[in-house]
Amino acid sequence: MKIGFIGLGRMGSAMATNLLKAGHDVTVYNRSRDKAEALVGEGAKVAATVAEACRGGAVFTMLANDDALSAVVHGDGGVLASLQRNAIHISASTISVALSERLTKEHAAVGQRFVAAPVFGRPEVAAAGKLFVTAAGEPEAIEAVTPLFEAIGQRSFVVGEEPKSANLVKLSGNFLIASVIESLGEAMALVEKGGVDRHQYLDLLTSTLFGSPVYKTYGGLIADRKFNPAGFAAPLGQKDIRLALAAGEALNVPLPLASLLRDRFLTLLAHGGEDLDWSAVGALAAKDAGLGQD
Amino acid sequence: MKIGFIGLGRMGSAMATNLLKAGHDVTVYNRSRDKAEALVGEGAKVAATVAEACRGGAVFTMLANDDALSAVVHGDGGVLASLQRNAIHISASTISVALSERLTKEHAAVGQRFVAAPVFGRPEVAAAGKLFVTAAGEPEAIEAVTPLFEAIGQRSFVVGEEPKSANLVKLSGNFLIASVIESLGEAMALVEKGGVDRHQYLDLLTSTLFGSPVYKTYGGLIADRKFNPAGFAAPLGQKDIRLALAAGEALNVPLPLASLLRDRFLTLLAHGGEDLDWSAVGALAAKDAGLGQD
Amino acid sequence: MKIGFIGLGRMGSAMATNLLKAGHDVTVYNRSRDKAEALVGEGAKVAATVAEACRGGAVFTMLANDDALSAVVHGDGGVLASLQRNAIHISASTISVALSERLTKEHAAVGQRFVAAPVFGRPEVAAAGKLFVTAAGEPEAIEAVTPLFEAIGQRSFVVGEEPKSANLVKLSGNFLIASVIESLGEAMALVEKGGVDRHQYLDLLTSTLFGSPVYKTYGGLIADRKFNPAGFAAPLGQKDIRLALAAGEALNVPLPLASLLRDRFLTLLAHGGEDLDWSAVGALAAKDAGLGQD
Amino acid sequence: MKIGFIGLGRMGSAMATNLLKAGHDVTVYNRSRDKAEALVGEGAKVAATVAEACRGGAVFTMLANDDALSAVVHGDGGVLASLQRNAIHISASTISVALSERLTKEHAAVGQRFVAAPVFGRPEVAAAGKLFVTAAGEPEAIEAVTPLFEAIGQRSFVVGEEPKSANLVKLSGNFLIASVIESLGEAMALVEKGGVDRHQYLDLLTSTLFGSPVYKTYGGLIADRKFNPAGFAAPLGQKDIRLALAAGEALNVPLPLASLLRDRFLTLLAHGGEDLDWSAVGALAAKDAGLGQD
Repeated sequence: MKIGFIGLGRMGSAMATNLLKAGHDVTVYNRSRDKAEALVGEGAKVAATVAEACRGGAVFTMLANDDALSAVVHGDGGVLASLQRNAIHISASTISVALSERLTKEHAAVGQRFVAAPVFGRPEVAAAGKLFVTAAGEPEAIEAVTPLFEAIGQRSFVVGEEPKSANLVKLSGNFLIASVIESLGEAMALVEKGGVDRHQYLDLLTSTLFGSPVYKTYGGLIADRKFNPAGFAAPLGQKDIRLALAAGEALNVPLPLASLLRDRFLTLLAHGGEDLDWSAVGALAAKDAGLGQD
Repeated sequence: MKIGFIGLGRMGSAMATNLLKAGHDVTVYNRSRDKAEALVGEGAKVAATVAEACRGGAVFTMLANDDALSAVVHGDGGVLASLQRNAIHISASTISVALSERLTKEHAAVGQRFVAAPVFGRPEVAAAGKLFVTAAGEPEAIEAVTPLFEAIGQRSFVVGEEPKSANLVKLSGNFLIASVIESLGEAMALVEKGGVDRHQYLDLLTSTLFGSPVYKTYGGLIADRKFNPAGFAAPLGQKDIRLALAAGEALNVPLPLASLLRDRFLTLLAHGGEDLDWSAVGALAAKDAGLGQD
Repeated sequence: MKIGFIGLGRMGSAMATNLLKAGHDVTVYNRSRDKAEALVGEGAKVAATVAEACRGGAVFTMLANDDALSAVVHGDGGVLASLQRNAIHISASTISVALSERLTKEHAAVGQRFVAAPVFGRPEVAAAGKLFVTAAGEPEAIEAVTPLFEAIGQRSFVVGEEPKSANLVKLSGNFLIASVIESLGEAMALVEKGGVDRHQYLDLLTSTLFGSPVYKTYGGLIADRKFNPAGFAAPLGQKDIRLALAAGEALNVPLPLASLLRDRFLTLLAHGGEDLDWSAVGALAAKDAGLGQD
Repeated sequence: MKIGFIGLGRMGSAMATNLLKAGHDVTVYNRSRDKAEALVGEGAKVAATVAEACRGGAVFTMLANDDALSAVVHGDGGVLASLQRNAIHISASTISVALSERLTKEHAAVGQRFVAAPVFGRPEVAAAGKLFVTAAGEPEAIEAVTPLFEAIGQRSFVVGEEPKSANLVKLSGNFLIASVIESLGEAMALVEKGGVDRHQYLDLLTSTLFGSPVYKTYGGLIADRKFNPAGFAAPLGQKDIRLALAAGEALNVPLPLASLLRDRFLTLLAHGGEDLDWSAVGALAAKDAGLGQD
């Protein structure tokens, strides 16, 4: 399938690579062109403009946040202005429910189609083509792009016909992960101050009740106090909690645990956490308890 | 090994049965004698008093809370007064760190030994002999009772030489499970009010990021709104969060997520939740969001 | 002084009336013209358009929220396009810090001046000319409009040279009032369930430690469960807490009590609280405690 | 009236002095005798034992906490064993609702009477005889000791016939004060990081909406970062919030703001706050926001 791919960060580059490996004809675009050039060896064509990446039947966007996505979608030469009639914009970014709703309307108004398809998985998972894709949109559009999902992920889940449903699910998923981080942070602070070794404790947890990779991965980072380099940076985590809260606000859904996470992220950012992994939130309980930060 | 077993609720009966099956000589005691008689067919001897259950090299206690344990340990004819020198009291109940510290001193003062060995697992897990045992105490004492742990559990973890460490770990573990319940409750309220089916949502979660049994079990109960009969009743959950907070207080460890859980449990109990499973806490976010309770 | 006044809700009408009484030449504008006509008897001139209200040396805006203010300021015929060079836009609305910053820049760019002057006081206080004005802006601009502040309020406070400082102070003030509401709600729920009459309790509080009008006013509304008609409606309270949190987010200031209030407001709104006074948040603790709502 | 007074800390000494000044015949007892001797010049008789202070028609107790009160009440030679039939134990300490209930029963069982009469006011207020007395107990007992209340306070409030009601009201009052501290701490952190001077801000608040002494006193301490010496030490504040939460727990009343305060106090104590005034909790929001602590 002839497609475009816009946004070649660590996640986007891995996804585009897997699309190329699966035999798709991919034209890639990135604001800083070097990341696009890096994929030429994999068979990618490089677009000089957003518009050039919008000439196929579908275009992926994988960008950092609402503003970055809006910047490539709106305005002259943007995705909206460039995509052919009936072509599909697949938004894989973690964006707000509000922007998803807006894009759904805007694309429909000009005869294009919009599918939200945010993904779960850190960069190494993306590289392995093992992402989980959470998709929502009109059934026909979803069906048309399913082969693309198969190229980037191990499984895809269709959660509704309104694209925003997928965004809501993605945000809630990141909220759940952040909840794990906070709960592990508190539990480890408690047992550590009570004299139990936190690595031994984590081993017990993950060997018994909490065997899933989320507990192993984030528990390990917290126990090791290894928050650098960031697999998923704290400002992105803060953004996602903000978007989950905003979605809750629009729906009148109080989310006290998300509120607690909000304040944790702000505390982290107020103390130089900009470049840390979001799991650094899991060290704040220990800090409040007066434990050393080693 | 000749041992006693005091406290034959659903958990205790299952554990005593497995000890009998493993060939140990078990004398059982329960306040209401019928539960003790029920184990005669498995080979148990029935003790008419606590003291009669304390004549072997070790005695298990498996009781509902601090008061119940103290009632069998202290006073005339209690465990402390009855156990032989050097015999071991294995406390499998989920009790406070403070009581564990007190019992450690009291047993030592009369030449007895105290091992804390709380367990993770619901009654059906206990029946299958698949509990996880979290143990702490003097290494020699632990070694002496290890065959008993093997009879009741699939694995045991020694987390320290001070018995209270095991109690702290157990409380923190229940806090982690309650955190899962709360986080799932909030996430499901959010996506459900946004139009996503909560069963489908749970399937997505447990097929992807959250495959551990805790998420499947409690997520299922919340999605089904099936809180009756209680596998682990809300007042017990409330007690454990209270004990985790008390442990945190004694150590100056703030636990904001545990505080949130505390208030959730009180809300549940204030609305007739006495007989519900503790996972009913996971329906409160939906209630606050104005969602129906079906 | 020849001025304009845009936004004639209960607060705005009272303020405009006091400006007229003080002898100023006031041209008033309101989207629904009847509220403007109602002030003709007080000496007001009625503007048919926003632009007509912008011909004096200053123009007040007193609108419900960011969107309403932006709607009269931006676009053709808006305040920005209509105000004379050097004239002053006095924004008395409770708006976001972000919009205040934006307006500061926009007015400066076209040679106009911007003063933020949100006010404290409910409609009856506004009618009595007893508002407290919290002002910020360039000293010369502030000085020029001080006679106008004297007409509407009993005292004005200049909190900085950047207009946004006044908005931040206003938002923080509403946060403090909402905190009083929540704390009274919890305290009353506690003592009431313990058998103490809540009116008697409030009398004790306000006769001793908490004699300020805020405690009397809101405590009385909570004790009486009298949330209708709304002096300040719940959605406005929710908005202000949202803006306080947003300001905190922009500055990396965690605000856990404001987060708690956020969730309280959403719970209220999810249960039909749209038309209630914001003090209805003070009845939620009693509801969570299972107390009747009478 | 011939009475005893047990517990001569800063509060107790001031109260006993005012009782002496009002002409009562007061026998004083304190664990460290020097504080008792110090009142001889005011006319006090010094008791060598608790029992000696229990020979009049009433005895005040003013002690730091449940344990201290229980230590003088229970056991050989304690208040319970020493007081005459029909004599009245006036408990002015801030104690738990549970201990108040227990003492009510115990005194009744031996034909004595129990009145709870905790007080509001810092030591300087006690010295001036301006305390507020919150009393509860049987009407006849209350009436009998009313002249004593008049000697120590500016006004007394009878909140019920069950003594525990007064303790609950006292605890709720301290919770309300702590809520003021937290809310001011957050508001000041927000405006300060936004560029507003916190002293100027406090002046605005206390000149407008929040004129009560609580806001002035605690706001001033927070703005000045003057937490030493402690008028009311942080561990006492922590204790009172703990008791308020415990009272809420016994009644199934969730108290999320009290829970937040609990965690704040533990954070303070985990960072060397033992000797600080409880208003130091009001500096934690600024600390979380990354503001300097000067």
